[in-house]
Amino acid sequence: MLSQEENDLLCCTGPGTPMGNLFRRFWLPVALSRELPKPDCPPVRMRILSEDLIAFRNTNGKVGLLSRYCPHRGASLFFGRNEEGGLRCVYHGWKFDTTGVCIDMPNEPAECSFKHKIRQTAYPTREAGGVIWAYMGPQEIMPELPQLEWTLVPQNHVYVHKRFQHCNYLQNVEGEVDSSHVSFLHREFRPEKFNAAVAGQVLLAQAKDTAPRFLVQETEYGLAIGARRNWDADQYYWRVTKFLMPSFTLIPSEAGAPINFTAAVPVDDKNMVGFTVTWLPDRPLADDDISTIESWTGAYAEVDPKTFEPIASRANDYLLDRAKQRTENFTGMRGIREQDIAVQEDQFGGPVTDRTKEHLATSDTGVITLRRRLLNSVRNFQQGQQPPEPRKATAYRVRPIADIAYRNLSLDEVLDSGDLDLARSEV
Amino acid sequence: MLSQEENDLLCCTGPGTPMGNLFRRFWLPVALSRELPKPDCPPVRMRILSEDLIAFRNTNGKVGLLSRYCPHRGASLFFGRNEEGGLRCVYHGWKFDTTGVCIDMPNEPAECSFKHKIRQTAYPTREAGGVIWAYMGPQEIMPELPQLEWTLVPQNHVYVHKRFQHCNYLQNVEGEVDSSHVSFLHREFRPEKFNAAVAGQVLLAQAKDTAPRFLVQETEYGLAIGARRNWDADQYYWRVTKFLMPSFTLIPSEAGAPINFTAAVPVDDKNMVGFTVTWLPDRPLADDDISTIESWTGAYAEVDPKTFEPIASRANDYLLDRAKQRTENFTGMRGIREQDIAVQEDQFGGPVTDRTKEHLATSDTGVITLRRRLLNSVRNFQQGQQPPEPRKATAYRVRPIADIAYRNLSLDEVLDSGDLDLARSEV
Amino acid sequence: MLSQEENDLLCCTGPGTPMGNLFRRFWLPVALSRELPKPDCPPVRMRILSEDLIAFRNTNGKVGLLSRYCPHRGASLFFGRNEEGGLRCVYHGWKFDTTGVCIDMPNEPAECSFKHKIRQTAYPTREAGGVIWAYMGPQEIMPELPQLEWTLVPQNHVYVHKRFQHCNYLQNVEGEVDSSHVSFLHREFRPEKFNAAVAGQVLLAQAKDTAPRFLVQETEYGLAIGARRNWDADQYYWRVTKFLMPSFTLIPSEAGAPINFTAAVPVDDKNMVGFTVTWLPDRPLADDDISTIESWTGAYAEVDPKTFEPIASRANDYLLDRAKQRTENFTGMRGIREQDIAVQEDQFGGPVTDRTKEHLATSDTGVITLRRRLLNSVRNFQQGQQPPEPRKATAYRVRPIADIAYRNLSLDEVLDSGDLDLARSEV
Repeated sequence: MLSQEENDLLCCTGPGTPMGNLFRRFWLPVALSRELPKPDCPPVRMRILSEDLIAFRNTNGKVGLLSRYCPHRGASLFFGRNEEGGLRCVYHGWKFDTTGVCIDMPNEPAECSFKHKIRQTAYPTREAGGVIWAYMGPQEIMPELPQLEWTLVPQNHVYVHKRFQHCNYLQNVEGEVDSSHVSFLHREFRPEKFNAAVAGQVLLAQAKDTAPRFLVQETEYGLAIGARRNWDADQYYWRVTKFLMPSFTLIPSEAGAPINFTAAVPVDDKNMVGFTVTWLPDRPLADDDISTIESWTGAYAEVDPKTFEPIASRANDYLLDRAKQRTENFTGMRGIREQDIAVQEDQFGGPVTDRTKEHLATSDTGVITLRRRLLNSVRNFQQGQQPPEPRKATAYRVRPIADIAYRNLSLDEVLDSGDLDLARSEV
Repeated sequence: MLSQEENDLLCCTGPGTPMGNLFRRFWLPVALSRELPKPDCPPVRMRILSEDLIAFRNTNGKVGLLSRYCPHRGASLFFGRNEEGGLRCVYHGWKFDTTGVCIDMPNEPAECSFKHKIRQTAYPTREAGGVIWAYMGPQEIMPELPQLEWTLVPQNHVYVHKRFQHCNYLQNVEGEVDSSHVSFLHREFRPEKFNAAVAGQVLLAQAKDTAPRFLVQETEYGLAIGARRNWDADQYYWRVTKFLMPSFTLIPSEAGAPINFTAAVPVDDKNMVGFTVTWLPDRPLADDDISTIESWTGAYAEVDPKTFEPIASRANDYLLDRAKQRTENFTGMRGIREQDIAVQEDQFGGPVTDRTKEHLATSDTGVITLRRRLLNSVRNFQQGQQPPEPRKATAYRVRPIADIAYRNLSLDEVLDSGDLDLARSEV
Repeated sequence: MLSQEENDLLCCTGPGTPMGNLFRRFWLPVALSRELPKPDCPPVRMRILSEDLIAFRNTNGKVGLLSRYCPHRGASLFFGRNEEGGLRCVYHGWKFDTTGVCIDMPNEPAECSFKHKIRQTAYPTREAGGVIWAYMGPQEIMPELPQLEWTLVPQNHVYVHKRFQHCNYLQNVEGEVDSSHVSFLHREFRPEKFNAAVAGQVLLAQAKDTAPRFLVQETEYGLAIGARRNWDADQYYWRVTKFLMPSFTLIPSEAGAPINFTAAVPVDDKNMVGFTVTWLPDRPLADDDISTIESWTGAYAEVDPKTFEPIASRANDYLLDRAKQRTENFTGMRGIREQDIAVQEDQFGGPVTDRTKEHLATSDTGVITLRRRLLNSVRNFQQGQQPPEPRKATAYRVRPIADIAYRNLSLDEVLDSGDLDLARSEV
């Protein structure tokens, strides 16, 4: 439960808001590289942190990210001509490079110097891991890109995916760090699924113990959130989700299986864009790995390839099948991500949930700790303290953990354990 | 004409509003029993008096009506699992019985007592006449169900139907008590229709005298609203509509013909759900009776069987056919209910009409009296006086009247008259 | 660039606003005559200056324009029966003539005088040039219709067309007077188009000089806005657009070619209805002229013939074809009007653009002068000065100019020049 003031503080990310300013200190995924497949291809509209933007890949392959409306008379640069090193507005021909400089103003006399006074808002971009990243904060303190493992391994080790989701970003992040709901929302009834590569151990564990104990540790990048379930008389089943500031998560999968990253990036306060990434440290993804992903039964929602809108949506009740809900899985919905979206898009009736109405219990420790971490960060930031995480690029070189450990190990030891973490936690 | 303050007072029925509180003293129809056809069937979403609710029929067949969002973290209970005596939230497995008690909290440790502190808002329900009724007011003064005749006769004497209508409830109730518009909005040009079982006398009467005199009498249940038309030199044609608090009506039909009840229940201030019921006191409805109803030419709008949205809607101009409007009936629209919806959904441009702009005349006496009755009730209630009608369950055992009477009879005598009322008015 | 106060002053035209009051001093096109094709045909809904209206052609062929909602209880007169000299409300049969007088009230007793107290708001109408005109201002100062040439020539010399456009009217008018954008938004790459009858000289000129100099002159009817481009060493190519108060324009075409008029009439602050008219002073339009228009490549957007909604719309990105944008024309959109609508409907993200964000340059002189003219008019009007233009019916007998002239001619001389103007400027 939060006060209304706290809820607003965490959820509002538009220009000038405290949380919006905090988000603007971080590099954020904003699009897939393949949305701009080649030089001078059509520009792509986007909205990030309540700002209307246009992305384009110039003649040299560099990605520009500009405010969407021409500073002259506000025509949309979406209609623009992307050619010869810049994006040209179709209304009067003004042309901008990737840094926002106006490099041509052909409707003015040649001797006119007005061109030099015009600068379109432009944000620096990077490409890594098949994703276009943007930094929307003060240029003088622009940090390095975070060194996420999947941005460092060869590209054929990585699968990246984007979807829109029609709720505030925080509802999605809360779901990612809430290992407790896995036992319910994602419960599977069909025994054959317990042996599947995707989620066998998870499925077994969730059946054995539905009330995990949460143990959480602050870290340089954010939080390590351990959910500990009884496995047998001697051992626990641990799932340690890593939360990385400002809204990224690493979701545990079984040892040796592909690893999952997610990011929840605010479109505006009522909508977000979610990036899901799966990678293997040691080998390329095989056809089987990709088939598993594209069965859309796991952490990936099937989307319309043009709009990135999920096929299972509020309009069709997420394709909920009541017969399947009796016999196949807990929700009657196909995939884990689709199940997550279904509950997240309508919490207490809103795309921005009303956290004053909640009733939290011990199993919500992960969610509670996440909020406290974000509230501390934003309040410190409001008092003038720069967030330290953006400067910790190497601290982002972590993995999540899912494994079985003897009961005498603490969370610290689980995090430190070679058996668990050596092969999986640091690149 | 009302002042803006009066209009708001009558139209706003959300939680905490005076009229909303008054409605919450009455049992209200909220759904058809057949929407929850059997134990543990899928739950049904609804919105009543601006509250988001979920209805479900539990394993024993009892109907529960709960607030729609799980008190834990607000997931929609629509996705819930209806099983083993309760509705279980799919997010973390919390389970509620029909009284709102949390009967399982499987994501918390077994020894945790938090479960006993959780109570979901739940409203008592009843089933009668094929309808699910709810009482959304203070439990300690919950009244009996009103003894409407159609809830007392065998079920095969009764036809019940539901539709959504996209306007404030009061626009619909005003239409029901306004016998004057029958001569116009529902006028029929085709002589063969005058002999039909449905509405022959009405059609004849409306043609004879388009300016009825209204005589109204206060009653225990609400109002008896008489509309008196000239019939011949000696007689009047009377239509006495009964208005039953808070928003029910009994609409006259010819002696011996099936009788009609309607209820207008606020969904929120801009939408309502309308229930129409037809019954015969003395015999089951015959196939012919049902065929007549399902020709959708009378008091019933054809609806989409899944959504209860009328087929003739604002989006298609209510299927108005200008050729038919010249030759067949006054509006060029098929049925009486469809004609009513067409005018009610757009009065002065709004789903909530602006009654400050009206110009009322003598023929609006029914409407004026209705408003006065409601205003008196809600103002008395605001001053602490409990509405007496909910305690008068037996007073609701009335029928409407439509018949021809000698001119020397007063409304009192018409109401008392054996010829007219004995067989039709009291069960 | 305007201040927010100035922007609101120019854009808001609802009842009681300064600009709304100013518009109400002028005759405005509100519909096509052919929308009401014959006596007693179905009425047509419209919304003009944020007022909901209903137009009907009575039994004698006269067009009435009334407030849309019956003054009795607000039923929409759209459903009304248009018959025997008036429009009759279907709810209770009240009937109004074209002047708003209530000529029948059949639900009231014959002796009732209430009918005489009822007057529906009605606006005078005229028909000229295939267009229905309305005057929505004070009756005592109603002016004559403006003597636009196309309303005076035989009807077979004239083509008239209507479209809805989803932005404030001013964005459209600004586009009409902004000759500068023709070089870009409407640029053509295919050389064969340079010889086409529609726009050959324009296309050539725009290629020769993309930075026209603007010279503007105040006139009795509004403004003469000259855009002067270099043509060859001795001559200029002139385009003189005429702006006629309050929101009409005459767009230059080549000498001898059909002439174009446009009007932007506010529906409400976020929507407008655009009228485009093409006429020939001296002969009927030929099939070829009409084929050219109905290729929808010029000043006409293709619309749905029932709704007047453009086929190329925001929902389909105006059918922008990126391949065509590389090879055929500047935008990849089919027609000049469709190109205009694309940029006008989304300036700085809004149907009402935020002019505080603009950066205007010398080529915006036409736009700047237009705004100044309108601001002066509305401010003078706010201080009690009646706008003079509505009284200047004959001053509207002007034409636009597009032609080549020797460089020593001033705008005055161009306007006065017999070569240029005699045959084209005054009827």
